[in-house]
Amino acid sequence: MKIQMFIYPGMTTLDLMGPLQTWQMWPNAEFQIVAETSGVVTTDTALSVVATHGFDDAWDTPDILFVPGGTEGTMALLSDKKVLGFLARRGENATWVTSVCSGALVLGAAGLLEGYKATSHWYVRDMLTSFGATPVADRWVIDRNRASGGGVTAGIDFGLAIMAHICGEEVARQAQLAMEYSPRPPFQSGTPEEASPETLKAVKERFAAAVA
Amino acid sequence: MKIQMFIYPGMTTLDLMGPLQTWQMWPNAEFQIVAETSGVVTTDTALSVVATHGFDDAWDTPDILFVPGGTEGTMALLSDKKVLGFLARRGENATWVTSVCSGALVLGAAGLLEGYKATSHWYVRDMLTSFGATPVADRWVIDRNRASGGGVTAGIDFGLAIMAHICGEEVARQAQLAMEYSPRPPFQSGTPEEASPETLKAVKERFAAAVA
Repeated sequence: MKIQMFIYPGMTTLDLMGPLQTWQMWPNAEFQIVAETSGVVTTDTALSVVATHGFDDAWDTPDILFVPGGTEGTMALLSDKKVLGFLARRGENATWVTSVCSGALVLGAAGLLEGYKATSHWYVRDMLTSFGATPVADRWVIDRNRASGGGVTAGIDFGLAIMAHICGEEVARQAQLAMEYSPRPPFQSGTPEEASPETLKAVKERFAAAVA
Repeated sequence: MKIQMFIYPGMTTLDLMGPLQTWQMWPNAEFQIVAETSGVVTTDTALSVVATHGFDDAWDTPDILFVPGGTEGTMALLSDKKVLGFLARRGENATWVTSVCSGALVLGAAGLLEGYKATSHWYVRDMLTSFGATPVADRWVIDRNRASGGGVTAGIDFGLAIMAHICGEEVARQAQLAMEYSPRPPFQSGTPEEASPETLKAVKERFAAAVA
């Protein structure tokens, strides 16, 4: 199982770590962490990460292609021909084409979601229509060989669901126990419907500049 | 707010990313990602990460000291005098001494949990007694200025709870909405009590070698 995970400057690292930590328990999986060039890549936190491969030595035919989301850095990719060209080619060859959060917009801009149902972060989900995709307000969505997760933390639910779909439930159940994934959020504020109007307004204002 | 997060070879990156992504929304926070020496650090997944600082140029007096967990790499730290000495000194000076997962064992080995209640990953939680700490089976535990989270994904709940405790609930509610943290695990298998006996046996066997 060749799992190819794309990373880029400004990405939201937790978008990547949900599925990556979950899929660490994927039987016989190999991983490539791919950026335009190999080496250090900044993120939207203080933690920089390392691409093991560049576009020139990345697998041509991954079993899973994965794209995480972000804010400014992600929006910049939507008109980045080199990145979109790379993803379009890998996406045509891949058995599974997947994303978490606003990574779905990048797949969409690469032409990989036309005619597919998909989900994304609540703030940008409706933008999927610009790419011919049908937005679905769900924690994860699987439509044929396209699989997408919602915003940031949805990557854990997405990661478990996809692994169960492909490898069977028991492997995913073991990953869930290993990661002690029995969540207990201290508040009910994880979606626009759950959050207070004040909280929603503050977070929308924070995102507005980035996604302008 | 000076937040100092310790990283080390073999660590579980999701232990770090739960609080780091959450605390990214901490008002006026500065972060140091500290390893023995600055530069690239391997983890328990294919993703390597980058320490911004080494022991020689890390803040002497952080507001928050944080230690993530792992398996083999974490156990190796329990007898690493250089690491334990660094953490003991920073921990004496820090306003808050915190961990996720088996990171609590490292704090314990550094003498920072004696007489405190704490939690850790379910597989190693009882080992906290070896360090004079009182294990508590909870998603997160705050005892005076010590705060600890359970295994891996508990770092998100922990991160939100600590931020609310220190900064007030609204900041944490905004972080929860930004991260779309309205979890929906596809299975009920996140604790030994929830998992099937077969799943529990398989995961215990996987951990046994690492923690021997």
